[in-house]
Amino acid sequence: MKTPLIIAKIGGKLIDTPELLNEFLADFASLKTPKILVHGGGNIASELAKTMGITPKMHNGRRITDAQTLDIVTMTYAGLINKNIVAQLQKLGCNSLGLSGADANSIKAHKRPVKDIDYGFAGDIDAIDSDMLTALLGLGLTPVFCALSHDQKGQLLNTNADTIAASLASALSDSFAVSLYYCFDKKGVLLDVNDNNSVIESIDRSQYKTLKEQGIIAAGMLPKLHNCFMALENEVVKVCIGDATIFKKKRQLYTTLTL
Amino acid sequence: MKTPLIIAKIGGKLIDTPELLNEFLADFASLKTPKILVHGGGNIASELAKTMGITPKMHNGRRITDAQTLDIVTMTYAGLINKNIVAQLQKLGCNSLGLSGADANSIKAHKRPVKDIDYGFAGDIDAIDSDMLTALLGLGLTPVFCALSHDQKGQLLNTNADTIAASLASALSDSFAVSLYYCFDKKGVLLDVNDNNSVIESIDRSQYKTLKEQGIIAAGMLPKLHNCFMALENEVVKVCIGDATIFKKKRQLYTTLTL
Repeated sequence: MKTPLIIAKIGGKLIDTPELLNEFLADFASLKTPKILVHGGGNIASELAKTMGITPKMHNGRRITDAQTLDIVTMTYAGLINKNIVAQLQKLGCNSLGLSGADANSIKAHKRPVKDIDYGFAGDIDAIDSDMLTALLGLGLTPVFCALSHDQKGQLLNTNADTIAASLASALSDSFAVSLYYCFDKKGVLLDVNDNNSVIESIDRSQYKTLKEQGIIAAGMLPKLHNCFMALENEVVKVCIGDATIFKKKRQLYTTLTL
Repeated sequence: MKTPLIIAKIGGKLIDTPELLNEFLADFASLKTPKILVHGGGNIASELAKTMGITPKMHNGRRITDAQTLDIVTMTYAGLINKNIVAQLQKLGCNSLGLSGADANSIKAHKRPVKDIDYGFAGDIDAIDSDMLTALLGLGLTPVFCALSHDQKGQLLNTNADTIAASLASALSDSFAVSLYYCFDKKGVLLDVNDNNSVIESIDRSQYKTLKEQGIIAAGMLPKLHNCFMALENEVVKVCIGDATIFKKKRQLYTTLTL
């Protein structure tokens, strides 16, 4: 039987709100299973850019990463956010190790080719070094990934944190029974976007298709669910979407995805 | 016989000048011995502070780290500088792993007590986890430390990079035959500060005392040499001070410290 492994991704308001983040980290740190955390941090990067007099460039909700923006995301993702999360987890007795995809050559990627839109220094993932990650987990460490990869030619690349989490989960499923949790500011996938209690508790592929056609799943949820189903197809055991309370011992409301 | 280990610390103009840094990293990456890199980055932090409209606070050449300054050094040291060095080393085939002292709980410290001066979030080192570092080296990784430690209570602390290098060298000397190299913008300890070729090739404790009395070693060199002799007293095999060319195969001019 494969060893269980929990991979959790946090983003959005969960990262920007210290009380929410600290509560989440306390629950996460108390999990006895080997685990990996992946975090975004786009809002904090945008705030820093503003302080520096730089206007963030976006296209359909995706960041355009020019050289200056890459520096800003490297500072906020790998520096400010990552190291503060690591320090908090250490306080909670969880021996964490902050990583970008360049560290230990863990996430190899290539710069996204320019088609209609030039996304700049955005990375699409080629490979995860699951042997190295297995070795680090074997030392009792909890890797904490920020949303950066590299091209092995010296270039850091801004990489979607949801995709990093799904790619890690897929790659590590060869050796581990992986459960993947996406944690954001809603309780799960909602039937009514204005009602945080209208959580759809379970979605399979055919329901996903119907919900898309009905326009209930739209915008930012589409790539998130695409990542979820990609992970399930790659032998990830369990994929859930919920809020910061997802690891509370008392059963919480969240969405579970199935094939 | 103990396994050799090289610990190199880089700082000053060596970090601010991309050509110098890249040349140094190429030489460093080509070393076959297990190795650790430690870097500063104060000038780049000061530049970022200026862009954000913040005036760096200094006392006798040491930074006063208020909360805002801690965020800035966390962004520049652990983010911008550390991850770009790691990406460059990966390009050069050196499997590097960027670390703050919070990562893997590797450098435990406490906030410097307030006496005459309140240095703010400045850390004095208590302990190095040499077992964990030995395990990481055993995976074929090259740790790259930025100048941050933590207090295990969730607080990151700005910590002098020279001191981190000397503390790592001292702690790892139990298991390794450590050579410690300080690389900066001069060729070594100079007899005449205006003549970069006036390198004193060897300095022992009694010569150090004389050079201090003569005022030849003064200002910023004093804490650097203090760290060097501390390392030698803690069984570090070899301590050298030189510039970016210190690892060139052709014999370079630099200063070697002896007890």
